[in-house]
Amino acid sequence: MNETAIRPGMDCVEIALGERSYQIHIGSGLIDTASSFHGLPAGRSALIVCNETVAPLYLHRLENALEVHHAVVHALVLPDGEAHKHWATLNLVFDKLLQHECDRKTVLYALGGGVVGDMTGFAAACYMRGVPFVQVPTTLLAQVDSSVGGKTGINHPLGKNMIGAFYQPLRVICDLDTLSTLPSKELSAGLAEVIKYGPIADMAFFEWIEDHVDALMARDKASLAFAVKRSCEIKAWVVSQDERESGLRAILNFGHTFGHAIEAGMGYGSWLHGEAVGCGMVMAGRLSLSLGLVDQAFVDRLASLVKKAGLPVVAPLLDTHDNVGRYMELMRVDKKAEGGAIRFVVIDGPGRARLQEVPDDLVAEVIRSSCASA
Amino acid sequence: MNETAIRPGMDCVEIALGERSYQIHIGSGLIDTASSFHGLPAGRSALIVCNETVAPLYLHRLENALEVHHAVVHALVLPDGEAHKHWATLNLVFDKLLQHECDRKTVLYALGGGVVGDMTGFAAACYMRGVPFVQVPTTLLAQVDSSVGGKTGINHPLGKNMIGAFYQPLRVICDLDTLSTLPSKELSAGLAEVIKYGPIADMAFFEWIEDHVDALMARDKASLAFAVKRSCEIKAWVVSQDERESGLRAILNFGHTFGHAIEAGMGYGSWLHGEAVGCGMVMAGRLSLSLGLVDQAFVDRLASLVKKAGLPVVAPLLDTHDNVGRYMELMRVDKKAEGGAIRFVVIDGPGRARLQEVPDDLVAEVIRSSCASA
Repeated sequence: MNETAIRPGMDCVEIALGERSYQIHIGSGLIDTASSFHGLPAGRSALIVCNETVAPLYLHRLENALEVHHAVVHALVLPDGEAHKHWATLNLVFDKLLQHECDRKTVLYALGGGVVGDMTGFAAACYMRGVPFVQVPTTLLAQVDSSVGGKTGINHPLGKNMIGAFYQPLRVICDLDTLSTLPSKELSAGLAEVIKYGPIADMAFFEWIEDHVDALMARDKASLAFAVKRSCEIKAWVVSQDERESGLRAILNFGHTFGHAIEAGMGYGSWLHGEAVGCGMVMAGRLSLSLGLVDQAFVDRLASLVKKAGLPVVAPLLDTHDNVGRYMELMRVDKKAEGGAIRFVVIDGPGRARLQEVPDDLVAEVIRSSCASA
Repeated sequence: MNETAIRPGMDCVEIALGERSYQIHIGSGLIDTASSFHGLPAGRSALIVCNETVAPLYLHRLENALEVHHAVVHALVLPDGEAHKHWATLNLVFDKLLQHECDRKTVLYALGGGVVGDMTGFAAACYMRGVPFVQVPTTLLAQVDSSVGGKTGINHPLGKNMIGAFYQPLRVICDLDTLSTLPSKELSAGLAEVIKYGPIADMAFFEWIEDHVDALMARDKASLAFAVKRSCEIKAWVVSQDERESGLRAILNFGHTFGHAIEAGMGYGSWLHGEAVGCGMVMAGRLSLSLGLVDQAFVDRLASLVKKAGLPVVAPLLDTHDNVGRYMELMRVDKKAEGGAIRFVVIDGPGRARLQEVPDDLVAEVIRSSCASA
């Protein structure tokens, strides 16, 4: 399975998960090319799920490429944005699949960013208790993070990604050309997750990003190719060791506990996920400093790079009366909270991360010193 | 894991699924006994999901037994019936879990029939991408079928069980005492699934049921114990070989393709699942006859036993203008339809079943000869 024609100039990263192993293809012009999808199950029907922003740009091109593989290629265009990552939108996928009498061999293609990928993956996990699916991420964030590793799901009014499944795609197709149409804000949001891989796993990569952040912001194709590839390699290494997040995998959530609180507190869709993670990483860096695990110079370096990537480094005020309390409340319900205690991913010396329970007073101090006003 | 105190007089059936293996405990007084739950993960919190019919009878008893194992035992009472097996009801479980800040170690207990079990199992599969759960089935149907094997899910307006997951419980606790409060109609519905195991796998068991159908209808405890145990053994044998229904497991759906059409066509909740399956088995028996796989005597025997178990043997009219067309349409969308063709579980000689595509005209003839009027 997964036999593929590797194109010249195309990079390939393998996610080793036994019978659920798959490849990430990284290159230019992949969406338009039928051979990108060679070797995947060729069910009679396929459904491409995308959103109203991506559809005019890439839907027709993917439909053309897939016509070789499937007798019928359906498409569903969802509203765009994190605010729509909930049950009602997910159900549109099920409606479409059932209206077209799609069966267990129907292949789902997620064409878009993290929201489309998470929802399509979860729909694939649940439709008839599981159908095959392929990720075709069109944002930097999705290419370096959300489309790789099998985390799928939707939000609940009381928490982000609270309802979901671990469900692996059969392949991830990262077409770098799609990044040329990405709004600057979203490019920055993606860079947050790229930057993340440095402090948690690879400070040499962190230095490379420091040297290339301007090139990345200018969408230099070669720089983007390396950033996507190295990010996927690190994520692949982590996920291969801990598919279901019973330990190591949690380090990928560096900056996410603060970040999720910001997203939820501001209302989903107000801050981009990557923006919240960018700011959250700086906060988590400060937390690591307060635990004596890193020095001030490291935190300054991290904050500086996050800022250069066009991301916020000042946290928003979530409640004018009890801002710290509101942050704590939101973080406690976050999935990292087990048995009532809040655990954070902290940097255990630059290039290494671990999960640690942190006393509330240290967390409160970081929130106070990171927020716009208190 | 799963180390247990086997009680005197308790039967135990093992489902062998590698690291997802678990036991079915069958006996009297199990719900009230803390030791029934010995060896299961003792997360800080637990949530018992049951329905408004079961709650007054058994909820308090289960709560008492679980107090030894969990610091906090929450309970959620859902509306009763197949008509509520949809997203809005499922979401009540997520609401409850999040309102109480339940985490990944929270254990879900499904206390009730198939609907409660399917929804609770699916909620456990999806909450934070998977939390542990235990089945405590209180109907005969759930004890012999739906609580065993890991099929979980909800209905969609366009099809039954279309949204779900394969997700195994950690244990199944079948307390035979709960069958004493079961309405006769539901006892019969459960017997449909008990009878099913005969034609597909074990004609000696079929003969035993023929000999004991009156005792079973009279709720003789020893007869019920054997019926539950033998049913679970056969189901365990099938599921162990094909957990995700890629082949053999489909034989457990004998009578279900016709049955699902009846349920969907009449509106979920109008016919009980077991009633529809009872009638569906007779129809599938006739289909096997029309293929020359069994003789008329076998079909008569099957119909006679289904009838003695208090189940309908005459199929309902689903559409006064095009009854056959309506049945075909509903069956095509059923999950057994792959690539457009309808496959049926047929009896390949008494005691053995297989999946087979059947020409539409033979199916149409069975529908015509089985319905109330045409």
